[in-house]
Amino acid sequence: MRSIGRIRVLALLALVVLLTSAPAFAQTDPLPSWNEGAAKKAIVDFVQATTTQGSPGFVPPAERIAAFDQDGTLWVEHPMYTQAVYCLERVPAVVKAKPELAKVEPFKTVMSGNRAAMAKLSMNDLYKILAATLTGMSVETFDAEAKQWLAGAKHPRWKRPYTELTYQPMQEVLKYLRANGYRTYIVTGGGQDFVRAYSEEVYGIPREQVVGTAGATKYGYDKSGTPVLIKEPKLLLNDDNAGKPEGIHLMIGRRPSAAFGNSAGDRQMLEYTTAGGGARLGVLVLHDDAQREYAYGPVKGLPDTRVGTFPQALYDEAVKKGWIVISMKSDWKTVFTFEAK
Amino acid sequence: MRSIGRIRVLALLALVVLLTSAPAFAQTDPLPSWNEGAAKKAIVDFVQATTTQGSPGFVPPAERIAAFDQDGTLWVEHPMYTQAVYCLERVPAVVKAKPELAKVEPFKTVMSGNRAAMAKLSMNDLYKILAATLTGMSVETFDAEAKQWLAGAKHPRWKRPYTELTYQPMQEVLKYLRANGYRTYIVTGGGQDFVRAYSEEVYGIPREQVVGTAGATKYGYDKSGTPVLIKEPKLLLNDDNAGKPEGIHLMIGRRPSAAFGNSAGDRQMLEYTTAGGGARLGVLVLHDDAQREYAYGPVKGLPDTRVGTFPQALYDEAVKKGWIVISMKSDWKTVFTFEAK
Repeated sequence: MRSIGRIRVLALLALVVLLTSAPAFAQTDPLPSWNEGAAKKAIVDFVQATTTQGSPGFVPPAERIAAFDQDGTLWVEHPMYTQAVYCLERVPAVVKAKPELAKVEPFKTVMSGNRAAMAKLSMNDLYKILAATLTGMSVETFDAEAKQWLAGAKHPRWKRPYTELTYQPMQEVLKYLRANGYRTYIVTGGGQDFVRAYSEEVYGIPREQVVGTAGATKYGYDKSGTPVLIKEPKLLLNDDNAGKPEGIHLMIGRRPSAAFGNSAGDRQMLEYTTAGGGARLGVLVLHDDAQREYAYGPVKGLPDTRVGTFPQALYDEAVKKGWIVISMKSDWKTVFTFEAK
Repeated sequence: MRSIGRIRVLALLALVVLLTSAPAFAQTDPLPSWNEGAAKKAIVDFVQATTTQGSPGFVPPAERIAAFDQDGTLWVEHPMYTQAVYCLERVPAVVKAKPELAKVEPFKTVMSGNRAAMAKLSMNDLYKILAATLTGMSVETFDAEAKQWLAGAKHPRWKRPYTELTYQPMQEVLKYLRANGYRTYIVTGGGQDFVRAYSEEVYGIPREQVVGTAGATKYGYDKSGTPVLIKEPKLLLNDDNAGKPEGIHLMIGRRPSAAFGNSAGDRQMLEYTTAGGGARLGVLVLHDDAQREYAYGPVKGLPDTRVGTFPQALYDEAVKKGWIVISMKSDWKTVFTFEAK
């Protein structure tokens, strides 16, 4: 009787395990687009360490901040940053509004459509294009124009809206962190107002959680006396390199517990984040998948394509400091959000 | 039978009303420190209009932002802004660290304790004091020093910590708005990092929801190679007057639905807030209660005390634009948080 009772108990336990634990685990894997491996494990371990009461790495909910670079970390940055495409494609509208610009450089070259000539434009020329396409209008007008462009623009390779070219594994990390009480911030070298135009819809990240390169605005009144904020060609924050931790302090005022990037411009953000006490997570996306996306470094023999460079020194620092380097090729089961839908 | 049934239904209804509605209303008055009147009614009406599904003024939760000036709106600003007291009282510590300053103006005058001489310091002198007491240290050191000072400093009139001199009616408005899905922001002419040192504890407002006058920080490394952000004497945002809506756009990126202030420095913030479409709320606190707090204008014959001035032009604009002017004397049953505890 005793052994039969024991067998029954064991059988019941086995049934319970089969009916609940195993399927429950499979259903609740927060990172289904990730292959099992060191990168996925590091992310899950970090979340457990920082959200388990009594764990030495526990972080109170109010302090749970995770910072994500955008271009090359959350979505495709090749062959050109999306915002750079926006600025170039806005030039015809700017010239239409001010026809005298058609004969003036650099607008003349951009209007010619000559790619080789455009590639030779100086930094000063590019600055003139940025100023003409990103400033001089109200913040609402800029937001509406950016939204309108994004609704129609398509990436040259996938022929899909840029907003569909986000990385599904990173979308899962964003959701996983938020489900565990983290506030997810974008910390981008791109324009703060440009990214705000779509961050909520594309990443579930509200406008106020976008830290980016920011220009001044000027408060005034339009002809009818209505208050208006006009975007000015005056830089307040260059949110790249050292500007990333500086921007984080300015806009958030807390040191993040986790930071995700993919290039030399993210180095200081990862250093600052992981230098804090307790459990910290620094992650770099390595683009080593020419077939499904792009392959560029110049680390590990990958070519230096000059957009989102990942130099050897960054890799060495990552190894030294225990940052996780994600191999897009081997760590990601699925690359794009549109493939997962 | 039919009329008896009807009486029973009415009696039951009356009972239900007595047992639930009336006591429920009394128990859940969100603004118990407010006297009944136009100001209280306007606040309650605004919250109901913007949070009732189907109301023409309905605001989706993601867009519910309310902005509050601090000095004179959330806590006492007389006889001197708390942060100005902090800067003056930090001077001895600064001089102790750099003894050569003891013989240099304006530090010499501050160290003398001669109030009359201190009152004559120039703007340039004051700037030197601000730079010496608010910059040159890491953001963490500054935060710790501000917290330590606040724990010991007391207001000369009430002999209580400054952090207890918040207005109970405004604390209730903050909680009431948050209970209705609003995110409450401080938008202050004071130093962003100074206010962040206590905003969570004092107002339940997290560090990242403080918009204030902000200086640059500089990313670097200390002697041991640890990353550090040093506060620099370089102004990025002067968050007063037109700087308030500009700061709101920079740090939040949304136009608030409601704004609360008390002085000329809040005018543009209220204009910008209430110029948006739908239901909007602009509120100004008028300090007309010399007995319980202070009385200053110069509006309505109240004296111009040059800290937090409320000019006649601001009052006229409030009337014209339908902003609510709170009379501290007649609208507030209780003034201070310490009295309500």
